[in-house]
Amino acid sequence: MPAHVEQLAMQYRETLLEDVIPFWERHSVDWEQGGYWTCLDRDGRVYDTDKFVWLQARQVWTFSMLYTRCEKREEWLRIARNGADFLATHGRNGHGDWYFSLDRQGHPLIQPYNVFSDCFAAMAFSQYGLASGDEQACEIARQTYERILCRRDNPKGQWNKVYPGTRPLRTLAVPMILANLSLEMEWLLGQAQLEQTVAETVKEVMGAFLDPERLLMYENVSPDGDHVDCFEGRLLNPGHGIEAMWFMMDIAQRLGDQALIGRAVDVVISILEYAWDCDYGGIFYFLDGEGNPPLQLEWDQKLWWVHLESLVALAMGYALTGRQECWSWYERVHDYAWPRFSYPVHGEWYGYLNRRGEVLLSLKGGKWKGCFHVPRALFLCWKQFEALGETTGV
Amino acid sequence: MPAHVEQLAMQYRETLLEDVIPFWERHSVDWEQGGYWTCLDRDGRVYDTDKFVWLQARQVWTFSMLYTRCEKREEWLRIARNGADFLATHGRNGHGDWYFSLDRQGHPLIQPYNVFSDCFAAMAFSQYGLASGDEQACEIARQTYERILCRRDNPKGQWNKVYPGTRPLRTLAVPMILANLSLEMEWLLGQAQLEQTVAETVKEVMGAFLDPERLLMYENVSPDGDHVDCFEGRLLNPGHGIEAMWFMMDIAQRLGDQALIGRAVDVVISILEYAWDCDYGGIFYFLDGEGNPPLQLEWDQKLWWVHLESLVALAMGYALTGRQECWSWYERVHDYAWPRFSYPVHGEWYGYLNRRGEVLLSLKGGKWKGCFHVPRALFLCWKQFEALGETTGV
Repeated sequence: MPAHVEQLAMQYRETLLEDVIPFWERHSVDWEQGGYWTCLDRDGRVYDTDKFVWLQARQVWTFSMLYTRCEKREEWLRIARNGADFLATHGRNGHGDWYFSLDRQGHPLIQPYNVFSDCFAAMAFSQYGLASGDEQACEIARQTYERILCRRDNPKGQWNKVYPGTRPLRTLAVPMILANLSLEMEWLLGQAQLEQTVAETVKEVMGAFLDPERLLMYENVSPDGDHVDCFEGRLLNPGHGIEAMWFMMDIAQRLGDQALIGRAVDVVISILEYAWDCDYGGIFYFLDGEGNPPLQLEWDQKLWWVHLESLVALAMGYALTGRQECWSWYERVHDYAWPRFSYPVHGEWYGYLNRRGEVLLSLKGGKWKGCFHVPRALFLCWKQFEALGETTGV
Repeated sequence: MPAHVEQLAMQYRETLLEDVIPFWERHSVDWEQGGYWTCLDRDGRVYDTDKFVWLQARQVWTFSMLYTRCEKREEWLRIARNGADFLATHGRNGHGDWYFSLDRQGHPLIQPYNVFSDCFAAMAFSQYGLASGDEQACEIARQTYERILCRRDNPKGQWNKVYPGTRPLRTLAVPMILANLSLEMEWLLGQAQLEQTVAETVKEVMGAFLDPERLLMYENVSPDGDHVDCFEGRLLNPGHGIEAMWFMMDIAQRLGDQALIGRAVDVVISILEYAWDCDYGGIFYFLDGEGNPPLQLEWDQKLWWVHLESLVALAMGYALTGRQECWSWYERVHDYAWPRFSYPVHGEWYGYLNRRGEVLLSLKGGKWKGCFHVPRALFLCWKQFEALGETTGV
């Protein structure tokens, strides 16, 4: 049993509340036009003003969640509202589908080709509705959830480039996000809907996408859950697989399913063993399951969210099972990630390191990195360690 | 004047004919199902059998071009035919638009969302028609060219994700490829069509996309040719700009336009000065024109085609102007590229190095690298140095 869990809890809490959240409060809020700037350089300088719906929604979620679960600070709710109002006014087309990106003023730039924009919007409005009690927000969350279910079988619609029939593939991201979204929206959707979606998604994730011999998560499989020998079919995204596993632990904990918890922990360990860079440390971004050259040129880079999701999964796995492997892997990832990604001088974490762990891009936020993975992981790790400290009385 | 141009001519000729072409002859031809495998590892092992239309077409072009311009080897024509027949049978949908990719047997995998597939197909069938005298091939080239002109203003069709009107952008790739394609197809299209297209494209490339103060090529500009302050609008792709400049020199040479040649050489030098990595050598893949973090995670990698296109542009620039800067830059790029990319043990060049110039992916071919940039550049440099040797009598 690690002796310093309370110290860890404090490290996560302080970094969240005194370093990361202040960075976004100070630099990202566009009080004039609404919404948030997410393209922020090392010191918070705004270098691009476009507004990407994934990140707008995720920041609404983060500030609402902090208001709901951490502390009732009016400033947090006001920041959440600034994004929620902007999205409600500008974010959707006539069918209620969410654009991928908008310009600073809210004019649409990229069409709603990506259903994950809708998933993050639903999460955002559900959490903001919970925080604010705003009935219109709840209605937007419900409408968006309905549209996601309608679009589920062909999420890209007219923008889908895959020729039908030749090589059908299912993708891990869909059940993963539905599992997470349903938990998020339980309070709006009710128990019955939740139970059904959760049962389906657990079966899919742990059945179709998990290789039962290697205990690795595949990103894409055939409709029957078989491996397909092509770039997409061989693709492993270790951080994604690990994130899926803490979603599973979260669900298993509610269901009281110890076997599922144990299985998810096994998978986390086995992904880490496969994807850890023995030469330079850190977790690879993409790998080919057969050891072939992956398609992604950025395969060997070390990404912030991959390491943060691993810290969450390992802290949670340790809290739920007490397994020593979880703890030694936790320490290894912690010792790699904290000194390289965190940057107390200006706040927030770097996002992208090269294979050697050197800063590859000076940004703290961009098109894909916003106010989401860092604060969510810091919050979850804080709470895991806090609870561990309480139960053990250390 | 460099003393060893004949030795350089020989180095390029030998590498082309005894190293690179044999690699593709030995490992890439699928005599059974037609077409080519392009996913080849370091030693030529096939690690994926999908057939990407860009690369199928480019390989047809390369073997046809070698047959036409280098030597009438029947084997080369037979290899070209193996790809041309496969593409003619499987490559197009009902409108005559070219799919992006096919499986090994030729079933379509990815829809014709990308008009560059059509451009490379037109180049391939034109060159193969010239080599073989096959009238059906010429007809396919002409039909494809017509479809490209029809699709020119909205090349992605239904797959275009840009919301119309908010931020219209023109992209350098379109006039560049039309310039090159029109030269390629001159013998099929006739002089009048050629002259018109060439005049338009030179004006576009050297007018709209060239920043006249910085002498840098931008990838995307507004319809009026202005810079747009967004990720796409700030994007520089140095290798692409340099490739465009040797297309311009090629055209200028035919037109006898010395001013255009001089301007193109100025731009090549100025791009190299901006994009050369002073710490580790080599040319960056992507840069932001304002020095902001670029969107592309692979921005600092060193790519084979970027360096080969630079060698072509510098050899051509030197041959056309005798400018000393061309020669010193040629030597610098040569000394960087040859020892790092070329790999005489198994043949062909590596494609992807990390910033430090170490091999990032072991592949010799993949989804984007096939039998095209290496042999074309080796052929062109060989011919430049051969001609230089003859004129100077060294």
